[in-house]
Amino acid sequence: MIRHTVAFSLRHESGSAEETAFLAAARGLASIPGVQRFEQLRQVSPHSDFRFSFSMEFADADAYDSYNEHPFHQSFVAERWVAEVTGFQELDFVPLGEVPARAT
Amino acid sequence: MIRHTVAFSLRHESGSAEETAFLAAARGLASIPGVQRFEQLRQVSPHSDFRFSFSMEFADADAYDSYNEHPFHQSFVAERWVAEVTGFQELDFVPLGEVPARAT
Repeated sequence: MIRHTVAFSLRHESGSAEETAFLAAARGLASIPGVQRFEQLRQVSPHSDFRFSFSMEFADADAYDSYNEHPFHQSFVAERWVAEVTGFQELDFVPLGEVPARAT
Repeated sequence: MIRHTVAFSLRHESGSAEETAFLAAARGLASIPGVQRFEQLRQVSPHSDFRFSFSMEFADADAYDSYNEHPFHQSFVAERWVAEVTGFQELDFVPLGEVPARAT
């Protein structure tokens, strides 16, 4: 299992229609084959300026690669993410001791 | 639900006995009342220098407060975390749209 997360902030005003539209569009990422446990989260720690996070899981590195290369993901990044996100940080996790497997 | 996460790196060599001992000691945090879904994870994204993460969930803000104030958590931070962690970032999450409840 690989858990892919990205914490981020948007250029839109909090609670704005633009913010809502971005988050709604991003839910399309959950439909890409291989995506499991897709979550949209609000970041609430005062120790970070990021406002949101997406979290999803993949069975293995091949499924993660396929997601990255999927046309919907690529167009979402090019057309929405780059224009509307002001800052982000990716953190990816595997259970302690597990080495990410590549399906053969 | 509040998900508390902390990504971090240790001053210990990767795979060392000191690293293993720190992670084993930290598993005691899972026994603090109110802690749910405690996970120890390895951070594997090349876009971050953090090496590990802990993730846990609380039913509400009061349970999170009780964890922070619990003697085991406070002694773990004072005796292990401060001495052995070289850098960390806390990110806390609630499901999008949910406002963290404070039990009354």
